[in-house]
Amino acid sequence: MTDEKVTAAICLIGDELLSGRTRDINTQQIASFLGPYGIPVEEVRIVPDDQSRIVEAVNELRARYTYVFTTGGIGPTHDDITADAIAAAFGVGIGHHPEVFAMLQARYDAMNTEFTEARQRMARLPEGAKPITNPVSGAPGFQTGNVFTLAGVPSIVQGMLGDIGHRLKQGIIVKSVTVRSAGLREGDIAEKLGLLARETDGVSLGSYPWFRSPTDHGVALVARSSDEAKLARAQTQLVDLIRSVGQEPEILEGEAT
Amino acid sequence: MTDEKVTAAICLIGDELLSGRTRDINTQQIASFLGPYGIPVEEVRIVPDDQSRIVEAVNELRARYTYVFTTGGIGPTHDDITADAIAAAFGVGIGHHPEVFAMLQARYDAMNTEFTEARQRMARLPEGAKPITNPVSGAPGFQTGNVFTLAGVPSIVQGMLGDIGHRLKQGIIVKSVTVRSAGLREGDIAEKLGLLARETDGVSLGSYPWFRSPTDHGVALVARSSDEAKLARAQTQLVDLIRSVGQEPEILEGEAT
Repeated sequence: MTDEKVTAAICLIGDELLSGRTRDINTQQIASFLGPYGIPVEEVRIVPDDQSRIVEAVNELRARYTYVFTTGGIGPTHDDITADAIAAAFGVGIGHHPEVFAMLQARYDAMNTEFTEARQRMARLPEGAKPITNPVSGAPGFQTGNVFTLAGVPSIVQGMLGDIGHRLKQGIIVKSVTVRSAGLREGDIAEKLGLLARETDGVSLGSYPWFRSPTDHGVALVARSSDEAKLARAQTQLVDLIRSVGQEPEILEGEAT
Repeated sequence: MTDEKVTAAICLIGDELLSGRTRDINTQQIASFLGPYGIPVEEVRIVPDDQSRIVEAVNELRARYTYVFTTGGIGPTHDDITADAIAAAFGVGIGHHPEVFAMLQARYDAMNTEFTEARQRMARLPEGAKPITNPVSGAPGFQTGNVFTLAGVPSIVQGMLGDIGHRLKQGIIVKSVTVRSAGLREGDIAEKLGLLARETDGVSLGSYPWFRSPTDHGVALVARSSDEAKLARAQTQLVDLIRSVGQEPEILEGEAT
């Protein structure tokens, strides 16, 4: 347990995310990973493959939040510029990291694959950066100060997160309960929910409607708190609230977010 | 046809996106919508349900890009604070928009549903804002200067986009071709691709690996250009590049992004 506020931001790097070619799932993956550490993601930015834009975003975010996670742009191709951008953001040099270079050399030797100059690029780390193990495809991410630089491919991000948890400070764990109701409309409960939100200290209440079709719509009410007793009381109040307008509540168990 | 550079940014508003509860699909939806108008999305931010954070992001983005699209926070509940935040960002007042109020009143009357104070909140627009029709669920979005404020629910965003296209300036249309190859590794083609990227003026080349499992991985090479002849030549060069390392290219037709 801790009372320290620990926060995170995510900086997604890649033209393919901005163009709509690729739908981001790393935000959800990283946020869900950080939840049990009590580290809320407080901001996300998506920026193009452009060094000055990456430098600007990373420097703003690393000054404001405890941790920053970047994704994308650490492969062997010409558009992989994240390592250079991170070095520029920190004002440090960049070069082959000896252990990473040797590890990749051995890996490609074992695959009878040439360790080309392009592949050697993946051993370039900002000065002082610590590698982050990539159990999926070898080429590591790296930690520079409070900035964790990860791959863009979601399965590789997932693998790299396994070498990050032990580096994180524990923050204040926020738990949540979700009470939802198909057919409920936000307008039916908005006044009562607003009153409840004002009188429940230490619990934040959110209302999330879904509307997939005229016959598949409803509202999910989410209570979040670091105090389990308050959260349990809020759950009862949300159930009562939905019943009070003649609708049937459904409690979703085990929702961590 | 136009030579004007027209740009956009997206500001997604909502704690549920930052917590990982909800996976964003509006970025992809809006970016794909803007593609045919020649309007690239150049930045995305996700910010919490916090007025000062929304104001800061919207003011930075609207100064930098031709258009800004916000999503989320325009419903009837206490956590729907986007209209107030946009008014604050523009330094204008906020109040019931007479036509929107009358439209919603008539809509709820027709449904025999009380037009409660909470529902009336959805008729509150920043001074001078123009409504954006919501064909899905009634309550409109609105345009304030160069900022389009939309709902968060994806099906409603899609509906609202239909009342936005006619308000947009046409930019420079960028088309793309994708040539992909299962089994190809980025390191196999990185040097040649880098050379090609340097010598193909007016075409940007991106390399996007996928790695779903040890037997399902590959690379998609994407060329983007506003010049169709250059794009056609780039496609041929990418096909040749992949064949030159003994792999089989597959051309994806009709990829707009």
